[in-house]
Amino acid sequence: MAKVLLATRNQKKLGELHRILVAAEVEGIEVLGLADVPEFPDAPETGATFEENALAKARDAVLATGLPVVADDSGLAVDALNGMPGVLSARWAGRHGDDQANLDLLLGQLTDVPDERRGAAFVCVAALSLPDGTQTAVRGEWRGTITREGRGDNGFGYDPIFVPEGGTLTSAELTPEQKDAHSHRGKALRLLVPLLAPLAG
Amino acid sequence: MAKVLLATRNQKKLGELHRILVAAEVEGIEVLGLADVPEFPDAPETGATFEENALAKARDAVLATGLPVVADDSGLAVDALNGMPGVLSARWAGRHGDDQANLDLLLGQLTDVPDERRGAAFVCVAALSLPDGTQTAVRGEWRGTITREGRGDNGFGYDPIFVPEGGTLTSAELTPEQKDAHSHRGKALRLLVPLLAPLAG
Repeated sequence: MAKVLLATRNQKKLGELHRILVAAEVEGIEVLGLADVPEFPDAPETGATFEENALAKARDAVLATGLPVVADDSGLAVDALNGMPGVLSARWAGRHGDDQANLDLLLGQLTDVPDERRGAAFVCVAALSLPDGTQTAVRGEWRGTITREGRGDNGFGYDPIFVPEGGTLTSAELTPEQKDAHSHRGKALRLLVPLLAPLAG
Repeated sequence: MAKVLLATRNQKKLGELHRILVAAEVEGIEVLGLADVPEFPDAPETGATFEENALAKARDAVLATGLPVVADDSGLAVDALNGMPGVLSARWAGRHGDDQANLDLLLGQLTDVPDERRGAAFVCVAALSLPDGTQTAVRGEWRGTITREGRGDNGFGYDPIFVPEGGTLTSAELTPEQKDAHSHRGKALRLLVPLLAPLAG
């Protein structure tokens, strides 16, 4: 069975790509995570764009493992913050990966921002890098608005304060399947399916 | 002597406008601050731009006092943050006016941003609003780069982490006179001088 490495340690992202491949009836691909391959140095994400970071992450992982690699970089682009936190979403409060601190800071910054200017988009860029040097990056977006307090326990990151367009629930109140169907990451990963299918064996 | 109200409680801003009028040899104008007039309700700064906030602040103060009013809105526009903190500069860490928290947060957010992408500009929009309804807004900018740690005790806000173009000192290491000569606020206020001079009497 052909192996594809998803360059993440996040079990939820691994599950999401796996579900998407199953839903697209792509068989014969085993999705590995970073926990399944020998460790290699993580380059810091210093790019100015999601594309730059996702492509760099994918390229580094191909060089280290020789496998086809999918890598993503994603974040929340808030209109009233000119598209930030953007590439800094995971370290918005100044240190890496403290979801609650990031979300509390964002709500604090937007305290005086009125309802009609609380638009935002979750953005995901998924990059596919192949051992032959081929590189592709695709982008998925999910529009919505920022709430005034967090709600819901599903998901991660800014999910509790993001209400997708057309609904009233936050993305942390959706089931994983509902989220996959509409989310930025779901859209981006589905755009990669036609490129992944030929790798199946 | 004609009175002009500078809509601020900040003694440093009052001193700055006073020095600029003296330097421009505008005589016969007494600069008042908000501490010198009866209190009136402060509208929150909810505008999306410096111009919106400065004009609203000036207009409110004219309606409350009947005096010609100068108001400013200013902040730091960081390239790697798409121009933010911008209008949110004074409450970047989520609450209003905690200079040290704002500055520490900004340095934390920029930790992985390399030197060549640490450009920024201090921006000041100064608005003049007259009792006859005339409104004018002018903009001053001061380009520089963001340091990796704070230096200097002069100034306020983000001065300790901003090195103006063409020098090596932070704006908190400059004397008030050196700062006035180049700063965003100095530039904007000087652009108002030709409009203030006719008010002298």
